[in-house]
Amino acid sequence: MERKFKARCIDLETAGVNIIVLNKRDAEDMDLNAMDRVGVSVNDNEVMCVVDLTDTFVPPGTVGFFEEAYTQVNACDDDIVSLRPKDKPQSIQFIKQKLNGATHTDAEIHEIIDDLMKEELTDVELTAWISSIYIRGLSKEETVSLTKSIVDSGDTLNLHANAVFDKHCIGGVAGNRTTMLVVPIIAAAGLTIPKTSSRAITSPAGTADSMEVLAPVSLGKDDIESIVNRVKACIVWGGAVNLAAADDKLIRIRHPLSLDPRGMLLASILAKKKAVGANHVIIDIPVGEGAKIKTRKEAEELARHFNDLGDSLGMNIHSLLTNGDHPIGAAVGPAIEAREVMRILKGEKVSPELREKSLQLAGILLELGGVVGEGKGRDAAMSLVDSGKVLEKMKQIIGAQGGDPELRIEDIIIGPHSETVKSEVSGRIEHIDNQGISSVVRNAGAPVDKAAGMYLHVEEGDKVDVGDPLFTVYARSERKVDQAVEVYNERKPVRMSRIILEALH
Amino acid sequence: MERKFKARCIDLETAGVNIIVLNKRDAEDMDLNAMDRVGVSVNDNEVMCVVDLTDTFVPPGTVGFFEEAYTQVNACDDDIVSLRPKDKPQSIQFIKQKLNGATHTDAEIHEIIDDLMKEELTDVELTAWISSIYIRGLSKEETVSLTKSIVDSGDTLNLHANAVFDKHCIGGVAGNRTTMLVVPIIAAAGLTIPKTSSRAITSPAGTADSMEVLAPVSLGKDDIESIVNRVKACIVWGGAVNLAAADDKLIRIRHPLSLDPRGMLLASILAKKKAVGANHVIIDIPVGEGAKIKTRKEAEELARHFNDLGDSLGMNIHSLLTNGDHPIGAAVGPAIEAREVMRILKGEKVSPELREKSLQLAGILLELGGVVGEGKGRDAAMSLVDSGKVLEKMKQIIGAQGGDPELRIEDIIIGPHSETVKSEVSGRIEHIDNQGISSVVRNAGAPVDKAAGMYLHVEEGDKVDVGDPLFTVYARSERKVDQAVEVYNERKPVRMSRIILEALH
Repeated sequence: MERKFKARCIDLETAGVNIIVLNKRDAEDMDLNAMDRVGVSVNDNEVMCVVDLTDTFVPPGTVGFFEEAYTQVNACDDDIVSLRPKDKPQSIQFIKQKLNGATHTDAEIHEIIDDLMKEELTDVELTAWISSIYIRGLSKEETVSLTKSIVDSGDTLNLHANAVFDKHCIGGVAGNRTTMLVVPIIAAAGLTIPKTSSRAITSPAGTADSMEVLAPVSLGKDDIESIVNRVKACIVWGGAVNLAAADDKLIRIRHPLSLDPRGMLLASILAKKKAVGANHVIIDIPVGEGAKIKTRKEAEELARHFNDLGDSLGMNIHSLLTNGDHPIGAAVGPAIEAREVMRILKGEKVSPELREKSLQLAGILLELGGVVGEGKGRDAAMSLVDSGKVLEKMKQIIGAQGGDPELRIEDIIIGPHSETVKSEVSGRIEHIDNQGISSVVRNAGAPVDKAAGMYLHVEEGDKVDVGDPLFTVYARSERKVDQAVEVYNERKPVRMSRIILEALH
Repeated sequence: MERKFKARCIDLETAGVNIIVLNKRDAEDMDLNAMDRVGVSVNDNEVMCVVDLTDTFVPPGTVGFFEEAYTQVNACDDDIVSLRPKDKPQSIQFIKQKLNGATHTDAEIHEIIDDLMKEELTDVELTAWISSIYIRGLSKEETVSLTKSIVDSGDTLNLHANAVFDKHCIGGVAGNRTTMLVVPIIAAAGLTIPKTSSRAITSPAGTADSMEVLAPVSLGKDDIESIVNRVKACIVWGGAVNLAAADDKLIRIRHPLSLDPRGMLLASILAKKKAVGANHVIIDIPVGEGAKIKTRKEAEELARHFNDLGDSLGMNIHSLLTNGDHPIGAAVGPAIEAREVMRILKGEKVSPELREKSLQLAGILLELGGVVGEGKGRDAAMSLVDSGKVLEKMKQIIGAQGGDPELRIEDIIIGPHSETVKSEVSGRIEHIDNQGISSVVRNAGAPVDKAAGMYLHVEEGDKVDVGDPLFTVYARSERKVDQAVEVYNERKPVRMSRIILEALH
């Protein structure tokens, strides 16, 4: 039973669900309840919406649209729209089957992802699906299908190059800003590397947050294609471009409970790489107490899955287990990390571990790309950096994305308030904890405040005397600085080795 | 960081979530995103709400409340309310642990149900919990804890009687209106039976829908207590009273995917019985192809779980496996079933199987209540019906609930349009399928249209000739009658035994 309504747009935004508002008299007439699905169309394009009810907010004969809904339906005030009650999509049966332990066919997974993209599945249905995948797992074939259907759900880049390179880091390590070094090295060697990155969710800075200090990162598909075809590389925010579109919708459900079923995590990462056309990819898997992957065994298993899945997808994947025990760079926070990267590119001897890791990762990509022979990649990468060509390439990328290529390091705003915390004892730095450092920097205001951050003056193994500076924390206000130092004192992420472990009275 | 806002109430109703609307400038200032949780309070009573965002719908400094939210917060236009960002409740950790296969402690289950009642858990979190219970299961101890915490989440009845009787049917059998016969029999024998029933969700009629034809069923706790203390019984809608309140919130999540984890199903049913104070309960478990429970084995297992759980809860539970292969009564639909019940109470010889089943169920309760000795219950129940005392008791119940005790059977409105479908062949009725019958009656308009229904003129095993009436369908319009007959012709729920099974050419 289809009925016509007059549209009214309401400036209300809820996260990711198309909400429409119906007068209760109309709803009763159409046998609709709150939360029921209806198909809404202006012309032929039908969009699934979810019903809210009202006595007076809209009169009978009018349908109110929340922002997501009127954008998708493309309806304006006083347009005539058609509503019809919608049956549940068939993919709900597939979800029920996964709850009961079945294995999905390729067609089933594509249908679920299609329905997800058409907003035909509610949060309850999606959560049940992801929860059952979390418990029941996905086979390799299911994971391949999921990857392909996520790629199909969005745009893909059309680049001139045949060989396209990419890198991904599983995350969890503070100051690990390798992407902003690896990308210009690879492009300086003449290879193509269209890098999309994420913003911080639980960390103090994502690559996109940090790069945004130097240049705009919210670029569309056309801009990205033209930039990469011109300068061989970009470093942009993946959220502004419609690649692997289904992934964002899945993450919205996975995020609140950190529900990261392995098959879905693999599919999510590789779909983003496949959507940019990458065929040579290195995956950086930091392993350690404070990283996302805690044990060597877990990391090896994950690496094997990445490599296997790459084979099935026709991608050449190199997974690398890296030391994820402690922060890699001295700088932690969006702006201060961008500054550290520019310092390294200019040849300053800062954050040696970050520099060395980046050279090694870039070296492997150079070898995969046939630029140099096996075992010669790391030194080739260093020569490129030392020659100034990488700095030049980074300036090209910054300029191509709309930033100022001549921005001076001194003009990157950090702080302006700061406090340097000094050692109260003599001894050796035994351990610096990633999660503790992240928590201090988030309390200083990062990632929302890009100028908030921390600079570590010590590394693990360093000897310190009483009064030696351990780190400096930067924030927008004294209050934020104090708050960050308070969190430091609670968590003590910089740990000294002690001789007397405990004094008993 | 707490901030004060001016309240504005918005006449918008969404199902079961407290939504507030904030101007984006305020949200940014408080570091809140769409879908974040905030604690909202007028005085001391803080309520968890979920944030929607707007540019213009409310100005900075004002917070808009959807209907659920302003009802719970108890805020009116221009009241000053406090908002503060809320951390996620600890019960989310327990949910994650269940996803990972852990067993809940009693305290954990109580905390999850408490947070559910305080609206502190989102649909995503609740669905993840229920999905993991569906897959991982609940131990007996967990099921006991869940039952008790559901009881604690709502009101409980205070009745004068010490021994309180109850019955429950797992459902799935058309025309199975035993409750409206068992309850007045038990009360006529002087026992107390406060019956709360459900409305139809997927069936053509629930007991509450059918009883509502004779008397109001949406009664509150105080009314129910006073009625039961006066006439020993009631037959009311459970949805109007706040017993086992958490159950409704769980069902909202379970319904879309028919997610009925066994432990949760058991807890849900027994919590409602415990909340009315019942200590002697019979559970009717219909078994058969068209019923909810398909096999004897499944039914026996369920019965054992009910009885075990009853022991742990201090309730005397008798589970009965009954024949659920085919419709029990001849009448299917809210009004026509109410009429059938009244006819049986008046001594008419209709629906013999429904009458006999009700006498047997009532008989067991009479024996449990010590009214008669073992094996004498069924006949005692029959004597009570034959004496007219049960009809008298039913009239008392109808009157006590606010209905007309002298309503004449002829005044119960059925139809008014109808069509009688006749047999096109001679033979014997081999099978009558519950689900097919339900579908026909729903297509006639039940349960929304109480006057829609079906009367079966035949039972399984009956011999019929060409032209003998099989059933009559009733509906509000000719169109609805046609639609129901069309569904009958598609599904053919009344099946004849055939001699030639197939003709091959």
